[in-house]
Amino acid sequence: MTDRDPAASADQAAREHGLVESVVASFANCADPRLREVMSSLTRHLHAFIREVRLTEEEWRTAIRFLAEAGRLAGDEHQELVLLSDVLGASMQTVAVNNEAYEHATEATVLGPFFVTDSPGIPHGGDLAGGAAGTPCWVEGTVTDTDGSPVAGARIEVWEADEDGLYDVQYADGRVAGRAHLYSGDDGGYCFWGLKPGSYPVPHDGPVGRLLEAVGRSPQRVEHLHYMVTAPGYRTLVTQAFVEGDPQLRLGDSVFGVKDSLVKRFEDQRPGTPGPDGRELDGQAWSRVRFDVVLAPQP
Amino acid sequence: MTDRDPAASADQAAREHGLVESVVASFANCADPRLREVMSSLTRHLHAFIREVRLTEEEWRTAIRFLAEAGRLAGDEHQELVLLSDVLGASMQTVAVNNEAYEHATEATVLGPFFVTDSPGIPHGGDLAGGAAGTPCWVEGTVTDTDGSPVAGARIEVWEADEDGLYDVQYADGRVAGRAHLYSGDDGGYCFWGLKPGSYPVPHDGPVGRLLEAVGRSPQRVEHLHYMVTAPGYRTLVTQAFVEGDPQLRLGDSVFGVKDSLVKRFEDQRPGTPGPDGRELDGQAWSRVRFDVVLAPQP
Repeated sequence: MTDRDPAASADQAAREHGLVESVVASFANCADPRLREVMSSLTRHLHAFIREVRLTEEEWRTAIRFLAEAGRLAGDEHQELVLLSDVLGASMQTVAVNNEAYEHATEATVLGPFFVTDSPGIPHGGDLAGGAAGTPCWVEGTVTDTDGSPVAGARIEVWEADEDGLYDVQYADGRVAGRAHLYSGDDGGYCFWGLKPGSYPVPHDGPVGRLLEAVGRSPQRVEHLHYMVTAPGYRTLVTQAFVEGDPQLRLGDSVFGVKDSLVKRFEDQRPGTPGPDGRELDGQAWSRVRFDVVLAPQP
Repeated sequence: MTDRDPAASADQAAREHGLVESVVASFANCADPRLREVMSSLTRHLHAFIREVRLTEEEWRTAIRFLAEAGRLAGDEHQELVLLSDVLGASMQTVAVNNEAYEHATEATVLGPFFVTDSPGIPHGGDLAGGAAGTPCWVEGTVTDTDGSPVAGARIEVWEADEDGLYDVQYADGRVAGRAHLYSGDDGGYCFWGLKPGSYPVPHDGPVGRLLEAVGRSPQRVEHLHYMVTAPGYRTLVTQAFVEGDPQLRLGDSVFGVKDSLVKRFEDQRPGTPGPDGRELDGQAWSRVRFDVVLAPQP
């Protein structure tokens, strides 16, 4: 945003400002004060954008066409519009303002479109793969509060893509795989077998994909494992563990979900290395990672 | 926009600002400098909005659903999204920045969704009604430049709704009515018979209509007659003549199209008053208005 007014003359600036004030004034009779606040702020920022870039009428038409196409393609899950919000960092900014930093509590990141309720429950040491293909990965950690005290019985939802970069819900066969929930123990500890996360692109066959291409951006996400941790008295944590060393970390995550504190060392194990729990790995390579979760109190 | 940062702490503000800068940086490799400029500005203003109102996750979901519905309903003419832009004043602001004030040249306003090319040509004194119902209205004026010199041969496109508030293209029967074009004479003069404009609402049966209702706004437009005037060497003028005395002027135009300089006195004539051109009005009431058009030079 510039400090100088973008209009060519004081007269012109006055006309443009006057229009903004007329629109804001039109919300004066709104009975819902929050809606009035949101619409007034939206109006000011939308107009500031149009004024600053001196949006041409052809660009305006392009924007309308783009949104119409995205809306038509959005489907029941509104995925193309969620994606647009994601690649503009708007989803992540919404996460940020709703999950303000609290001491050293684990940072939040985007939920993404692939969380579903009713995941299968697994015990400590259980396997969430459910037939999904990929390199086995032992995941362990603790759930504590910001004083370091264990949080027992926290519900830990975990979900991830298979080695082809697809979540179970992206297959048409109704499979449930690569997702589960478990609970932290009395000492706050938890552990399970998952899959080492792989890299995959966000869907890029629609208008958002064309936008990414036009601006020279990759649709690729940094490798990650999704978490949602809930426990009474604590702020629900939606986050992801990212894979240290993924080259995409340097190139950038397409939805701006990465926080340095969430990048974790996945220690790859040679074939034949015994599993930590005595699991028979049939000579496969496997990996392991520690992800300690620190919950902020409910505000 | 507030001067104080909306975040609760300097740390939190730094995170939120950092995210904005990451998203802006993601456009650094965009080969098209204008696209980079537009996307960077859009990102800054979109994030400033989210940060300022501390948009909740539920509000974010509501916004996504709203845009998805508007996109689905937009149709080939993208009308629901144009309407959204209209009622937020974004269409009018786009007009404003693309038609900067120039001396006392006639001010521009929104085109609206009902302009079509290939309107019928009429001579001076001809009638554009084409069977559309309404009170006859004699319209006359001149087309000049800002020095007052006549602009001969300017193409004047005129279109308007009938007394039911509908444009010809809103009927399914393919009628062409309430629209025409004519040319200014050697002295810049023009005149024609049209209809006295009536009031009508913008379409309000979709999500934009629900938004207007939620914020306590009327969908009604101020009574108006559309003009588009083109002449070589001059900036194309898209404008409207508004009816002085329309109560909606006080209540507000739903698309913010009104400029004081465009409000014109329509002089209503008693039944039996002879027409200015000797037209036989069969004892009907009629009206008359003068609309002098001043064109800015092509920049």
